[in-house]
Amino acid sequence: MKLYDYAGAPSPRRVRIFLAEKGISVPMVQVDLRTGEQFGAAFRAINPDCTVPVLELDDGRRLTDAIGICRYFEMAQKGPLLMGRDPAEAGIVEQWQRWAERDGFYAVMEAFRNATPGLKNHALPGPDEYEQIPALAERGRTRVARFFERLDARLGENEFVAGPAFTIADITAFLSVDFAGWAKLKPPETLRHLKRWHDAVSARPSTKA
Amino acid sequence: MKLYDYAGAPSPRRVRIFLAEKGISVPMVQVDLRTGEQFGAAFRAINPDCTVPVLELDDGRRLTDAIGICRYFEMAQKGPLLMGRDPAEAGIVEQWQRWAERDGFYAVMEAFRNATPGLKNHALPGPDEYEQIPALAERGRTRVARFFERLDARLGENEFVAGPAFTIADITAFLSVDFAGWAKLKPPETLRHLKRWHDAVSARPSTKA
Repeated sequence: MKLYDYAGAPSPRRVRIFLAEKGISVPMVQVDLRTGEQFGAAFRAINPDCTVPVLELDDGRRLTDAIGICRYFEMAQKGPLLMGRDPAEAGIVEQWQRWAERDGFYAVMEAFRNATPGLKNHALPGPDEYEQIPALAERGRTRVARFFERLDARLGENEFVAGPAFTIADITAFLSVDFAGWAKLKPPETLRHLKRWHDAVSARPSTKA
Repeated sequence: MKLYDYAGAPSPRRVRIFLAEKGISVPMVQVDLRTGEQFGAAFRAINPDCTVPVLELDDGRRLTDAIGICRYFEMAQKGPLLMGRDPAEAGIVEQWQRWAERDGFYAVMEAFRNATPGLKNHALPGPDEYEQIPALAERGRTRVARFFERLDARLGENEFVAGPAFTIADITAFLSVDFAGWAKLKPPETLRHLKRWHDAVSARPSTKA
């Protein structure tokens, strides 16, 4: 088994933090996104989507989706459960993970990819070219500001994003807040619940991964 | 337990098909999206996101995300498994479900919501207002065309979207193809693997749900 990774990118970091929380160690292979290695023939043969992370299983099957990779390890039942311990919790965690991804992570991606000069024609990840849309960068910034507010409100009522326990929803939300910094967007200091939570998550050893 | 639903919308239909495949029956409450009932005070108290489906559990907890609701029933172990039977399958199914949603369902949403006169200022679901972006409607149409091609290529090598068995990835992909019709986008007849699969899925009794 091995994990294709790039230490500088937010999406594979979700998997690294998830694995660190579970205490699972997997051999890593770095794919240099800065030099465009993901678009080269060698990596394209591994993942035609030209994205990391990719988990290669011992039987050769490959998982090319960050959350799918996490699900694999969750179902393998090693380490603490991070996706809910019973049916209702699993549904609630999935809901909040998806919320953080859609309203947080993807919103940051809109803001960042549609306004960064080096990503011209790469407004979406992957090999297909898509032109930047300035109005979409602007919409992304608005969405991120609202994401920060809702995250703060949620964390005013719950210790963690999906409830009383740390879950994959916190990993996605945490990375979305950090990723927002790439688009020069930061939660206002007035959002103190968000700050309390961000400080607590930052102090977890897993977030060094 | 009850499910807040709207018979005419694609997102709650994912849950209805999923439940029909499992042979699970849940009392339904219709929320009339045509008249804007989802934005009224009564439904806002049930789901501040103003979206359906919502599953209300017997203990009062509510799940407001279609895939989270499916996960709840999957974990409850009633009826055939539709999200993978072992860790590797679960990861693969999740990957393809998320692919169909991101590159299919959300792409159709871009194309449809940014170009439909009745959805002015509602370019995204939910209570927040977002202006339509014509360039995003255009990008959505391009993405949907590519989604059709990739779906066809995938179905040239596999009977179903995630492999040899019908799963939730087929439900999302199937609804994305149908939803595309709302934006007047149809798979070309030349995509014969897609057609073979669409005919087969359409013939399943669950898709009448």
